[in-house]
Amino acid sequence: MGATPEIAAIDELIKQRLAEILPQQIEAQMKAREESRTPSLAIIATKGTLDWAYPPFILGSTAAALGWDVSIFFTFYGLNLLKKDVSDLKVSPLGNPGMPMKMPFGPDWFKGLNWNIPNLLQAGIPGFESVATLLMQQTIKNNGVASIDELRSLSLEADVKFIACQMTVELFGFSHDDFIPGIDYAGAATFLPVAQKADVSLFM
Amino acid sequence: MGATPEIAAIDELIKQRLAEILPQQIEAQMKAREESRTPSLAIIATKGTLDWAYPPFILGSTAAALGWDVSIFFTFYGLNLLKKDVSDLKVSPLGNPGMPMKMPFGPDWFKGLNWNIPNLLQAGIPGFESVATLLMQQTIKNNGVASIDELRSLSLEADVKFIACQMTVELFGFSHDDFIPGIDYAGAATFLPVAQKADVSLFM
Amino acid sequence: MGATPEIAAIDELIKQRLAEILPQQIEAQMKAREESRTPSLAIIATKGTLDWAYPPFILGSTAAALGWDVSIFFTFYGLNLLKKDVSDLKVSPLGNPGMPMKMPFGPDWFKGLNWNIPNLLQAGIPGFESVATLLMQQTIKNNGVASIDELRSLSLEADVKFIACQMTVELFGFSHDDFIPGIDYAGAATFLPVAQKADVSLFM
Repeated sequence: MGATPEIAAIDELIKQRLAEILPQQIEAQMKAREESRTPSLAIIATKGTLDWAYPPFILGSTAAALGWDVSIFFTFYGLNLLKKDVSDLKVSPLGNPGMPMKMPFGPDWFKGLNWNIPNLLQAGIPGFESVATLLMQQTIKNNGVASIDELRSLSLEADVKFIACQMTVELFGFSHDDFIPGIDYAGAATFLPVAQKADVSLFM
Repeated sequence: MGATPEIAAIDELIKQRLAEILPQQIEAQMKAREESRTPSLAIIATKGTLDWAYPPFILGSTAAALGWDVSIFFTFYGLNLLKKDVSDLKVSPLGNPGMPMKMPFGPDWFKGLNWNIPNLLQAGIPGFESVATLLMQQTIKNNGVASIDELRSLSLEADVKFIACQMTVELFGFSHDDFIPGIDYAGAATFLPVAQKADVSLFM
Repeated sequence: MGATPEIAAIDELIKQRLAEILPQQIEAQMKAREESRTPSLAIIATKGTLDWAYPPFILGSTAAALGWDVSIFFTFYGLNLLKKDVSDLKVSPLGNPGMPMKMPFGPDWFKGLNWNIPNLLQAGIPGFESVATLLMQQTIKNNGVASIDELRSLSLEADVKFIACQMTVELFGFSHDDFIPGIDYAGAATFLPVAQKADVSLFM
């Protein structure tokens, strides 16, 4: 069939219809694709202190409660958060000044005080780390915030995936028996593709 | 109209044209869509020290200046960065060795010295935290870098959205009156969808 | 050309074919686009200690080994990681309690001990920072983990792009001569678009 005038007209019509339909169609499909996706969160948890144990478990369990797919890769000092016994996690206010806390117990005038724990700690008062840890634990308890142990169980129940960094396990001389059950062991090379597909990746 | 030979030929023509045109058109429009999107940055600011106050405000205001949509969620120790008075933020070199600073004032031989502040601090010299803070403030001032207060105002003027973590507000016993005006109060469940849509999400 | 019956029929045919072909074609191209993309990782390295030097170089070189495009922006204290001589990087366990390490040398009973270095450090034993650094170096060496210097060279050989924050260079009074060759100097405004295009952006 040669390029008769009729063909040119048909061609024109195809282009015209395409120009009308394509943009909305693409827009609609990309939107539908985005909206039908389960949102996902990939966390790399690298700190092993009582205070920094909260962000991965709080954000992880919150996202899971919203229906997100959540994976947490515990590596470096973060591996401590997977130990069977996390009751010995300590606050480290030395590296975190600006931790303001009202005294959570005692008489009213005492409770009104604002303790700048880091400064007290830096003043080198012996045994103050334990006081700071107790203070944090009490503040958290008084406010009905769950303990790390509880938040961790909650996260697992909400299907947050826990992956322990096998290289760190070996580097620090841990054995799998040191950790809670129900976790995977893998390396960064396994976790990177998880992070790639995640909507949000956070290094904590 | 039945499937006359003419219609079959026209159909063939339509398919051929579509096969020619569609791929590039779709590619071009997907690209255009990406490029027409306003880039967005979601920051979770969790530290409350003078030094770590800089990254969220510097990155936030820089992105806003480039036309990005920027939201900062202040949670945990980061809530301190929203206090009306931020003049009492302290440097915490204890957790940040490797902070090298030339002495910003004094005679030349003195200015030439490289102070390894963390080491000095770890040596336990009393009152050294204040010296480190002064040193940092002076270094920043001498180099024409804005103060935290200035960077914060700048960020707000550039339409960076500030969201304070309501749960942390309650946990640490703050009242809304402790904070600057013009900020929202919300929880992690509100911020996660913001992070999901953002091109870049950073936990600082 | 008016709306003759023939044209109307052709138009109908075009719409029908478009409705059949478009959705799959768009879906297929979106998928192909995603899958053909080289994954990319953008790291903002902000810490300058021996321990926190590992995450950017380990994750960066691992991603590069998997074929990812990797860029690391060294800013703030992280600039120290680009210095020619990184042999003086120190562990800062003060800010990182929960660093458990078995003693890497000595008799068996001694090696079996678990040293809670932060606690020891916080007890203020003089010179303990050096012991902690040595302990970390030895642990790493005994486990066949590369040194920072080696991991950095490995990253460069694997085409990880290193960008030094020019503003920090000026703020802390460094000169380009202090740093290894083969790196770029740029500001946050240059790095933000790199992070925008990256699949994974991490603030370390």
